[in-house]
Amino acid sequence: MNAQIAQLIAGLTEDEPVRELGAQDCWELLRDHELGRVAFHLGPEVHLVPVNYAVDGNVLLFRTTAGSKLVGVLMNPDVVFEIDDHDGSGAVSVIVRGQARRLEEDQAHRADAVGLRPWVPTRKDEVVEIRPTEVTGRAFWLERSDA
Amino acid sequence: MNAQIAQLIAGLTEDEPVRELGAQDCWELLRDHELGRVAFHLGPEVHLVPVNYAVDGNVLLFRTTAGSKLVGVLMNPDVVFEIDDHDGSGAVSVIVRGQARRLEEDQAHRADAVGLRPWVPTRKDEVVEIRPTEVTGRAFWLERSDA
Repeated sequence: MNAQIAQLIAGLTEDEPVRELGAQDCWELLRDHELGRVAFHLGPEVHLVPVNYAVDGNVLLFRTTAGSKLVGVLMNPDVVFEIDDHDGSGAVSVIVRGQARRLEEDQAHRADAVGLRPWVPTRKDEVVEIRPTEVTGRAFWLERSDA
Repeated sequence: MNAQIAQLIAGLTEDEPVRELGAQDCWELLRDHELGRVAFHLGPEVHLVPVNYAVDGNVLLFRTTAGSKLVGVLMNPDVVFEIDDHDGSGAVSVIVRGQARRLEEDQAHRADAVGLRPWVPTRKDEVVEIRPTEVTGRAFWLERSDA
């Protein structure tokens, strides 16, 4: 049982199994997680990649190499970011729609300031910022038989 | 420590922290998880939603309502599906690129046959199938300080 999920699904029942979360709950979930996924366009294709991220004020930061992820967000900055979590009794998800951009070198130190480290020690030279335009979240009461 | 992750990151080190997974490992991870995310186009927008899913032979199945998710995959069937998992020492992710389509009524019973239940008891009348065209996976050795 995850205490944060338990709090967010409190009062939900089989008859009313879903709740929209307020902005404060969404941001608390964003601050308390570190692995999310970013979906973006790259030409005609949708791409979806896991990223470890950190919250810096009211934006999200993640590191990347000068590869396809970064090329994607520079060509079309409209991205969607997602986190979710679940246990036997409930689930939560937060969807962030926003604009991504590569931070200039003189701004990239912000990633260090918020403790954003690359999990994996490969070269990740660029910091990408997602500036949210819409943050929505939902909490779900689960009817799974292992609840 | 997650035994499946431990096995997949065995032999990875700080100097060689990432491994591409073979098809067999990817499908084993897909069969062993039940929460993933689907990214798709809806007009000019990218959408990203969490779904609970099940593996049916060599395709993925998830349930949805006649809402935006389903409209999206019917208008543009190119989708990307993702699962990931991590513990203190490693992480794994599987990315499935494929074609989505709504199952006809006479096929929708396949979802019951593989034990795909909606986690949340709202009306979810449609079953969507993702037929993979590309399945890739990676395992990561993590250098997180809490490892």
